[in-house]
Amino acid sequence: MKSDTAAVAEGDRMSTRDLLLTAASELMRKRDTLNVPISEIAAEAGVNSALVKYYFGNKNGLMLALLERDLGASITQLSALVNMDMSPSKKMRYHLSGLVRMYFRCPYLQRLLIKTMRDESAEIARDIAEKYLAPISHAYHAMISEGVAAGEFKPIDSRLFYFIAIGAADQIFSARFVLKYVHGIDEIDDELRRAYVDTTITLIMDGLLAKS
Amino acid sequence: MKSDTAAVAEGDRMSTRDLLLTAASELMRKRDTLNVPISEIAAEAGVNSALVKYYFGNKNGLMLALLERDLGASITQLSALVNMDMSPSKKMRYHLSGLVRMYFRCPYLQRLLIKTMRDESAEIARDIAEKYLAPISHAYHAMISEGVAAGEFKPIDSRLFYFIAIGAADQIFSARFVLKYVHGIDEIDDELRRAYVDTTITLIMDGLLAKS
Repeated sequence: MKSDTAAVAEGDRMSTRDLLLTAASELMRKRDTLNVPISEIAAEAGVNSALVKYYFGNKNGLMLALLERDLGASITQLSALVNMDMSPSKKMRYHLSGLVRMYFRCPYLQRLLIKTMRDESAEIARDIAEKYLAPISHAYHAMISEGVAAGEFKPIDSRLFYFIAIGAADQIFSARFVLKYVHGIDEIDDELRRAYVDTTITLIMDGLLAKS
Repeated sequence: MKSDTAAVAEGDRMSTRDLLLTAASELMRKRDTLNVPISEIAAEAGVNSALVKYYFGNKNGLMLALLERDLGASITQLSALVNMDMSPSKKMRYHLSGLVRMYFRCPYLQRLLIKTMRDESAEIARDIAEKYLAPISHAYHAMISEGVAAGEFKPIDSRLFYFIAIGAADQIFSARFVLKYVHGIDEIDDELRRAYVDTTITLIMDGLLAKS
C-alpha cells in the first residue's frame, strides 16, 4: 500500500517525466538538431540530470518516449479520421494539413524516427514499425482504396503515396537550412507554415484526384 | 617541370581519389547509413587508409568531395535543361525523373547534404548553399515562372515547390527501413524505382498543372 508521500511523489514523477520530454522537444526544435546533451535537457527542465536515467534509463530511452509522445496521439487521430463519415478527399485533405502541422510542432520528428530505426536494434526497429508505421500504412491503404472506389482518386499505390506525402510534408522542416542560407529566412513562422500547408495540399490533392 | 614518373603518379592520384569516392558511395548505399569508417572505405577501395588523409584531409573532406561528385554534374545538367527549347511541363517532368534516379544512385545524398550543412561551420554551409542550393533554387524559379507564363502551371511559390518535390523524390530512399519493416521489401530494385518515378511524376505534375 502506498503512503500519501509516495502518492505525491508519483504525481511529481509523472510531471517531471513530461517536463523532460517537453524540454528535449523544445531544445531539438530550437536548435534544429537531434544532438542535445542530457545535461542541457535536464537544465531546461529545471531538474537534476540523474532523473533522465531514473525515468528513461538513458538518452535512447528518452528519445523513444518522445517518439511515443509525439506520434502516439497522431496515430490514434489518424485511425479515427479513417473511420469518419466524410468523403475520402476531405479526409485526405484534413490528414495532409495535420501532417504539416505535426512537423511544424515537432520539426525533428521524421529525422528522429529515421535515426532511431537505423541506430537501434532490429528488435526496436520492428517494434516501432509495428506501433507507428504499420497503422499509418493501413490508414493510407484504407483512405486511398476508399477514394478510388468512390471515383474520387486515381488508382495509385498507397505504399508509394505514403512516401510522397510524408516527404513533401516534412522536407521544409528537415532542410530548414535551405530557407536560411538560400532565402535568408531564419524561422518558419505561422504565415510560412500556412503557405506550406496550402501549397502541399493543393499539389498533392490535385495530383491524387481522378481527372473528371 | 614534372618527370614522367611524377606525371604517372599524378594519373594514379586521380584514379585513387575516384576509387575512394566510389568506395564511400557504395558502402553508404549498401549499408544505408552515413556512418562508414575511413578504414573500411579504404579497404573497399583497396588502398591504404592513410591515402584518405592525403587526398581529402579527413573524413569531412571526403564527404564534401562526394557531395561535389554527386551533385556537381546534376546541377550543370539542370541549368542546361532550363535553357532548352522545350515546353515547361516537359522540362519539369524530365527533371523529376532525373531527381528520383539521382537518389536511386545515391540514396544517402539528401541525408549527407543535410548532415553536412548542420554539422560543418556556417562558412562551409554558406559555400554549399551557394554552389549547389542556390542554382537549384534559381532553376526552379525559372522553370515555374516560365510554366506559369505559358499558362501550363498553376501560380505556385517556387521556393515551396522545391521542398515538396525534393521531399517527395527522396523520402523512399531516406526512409528505406519502412519498406523493410512494414512491407518486407529489402531492396529498391529497378521495377520499384520505375514505379516510384511514375507515381511521383504523375502526382506532382498533375498537382502543378493549371486546370484547363
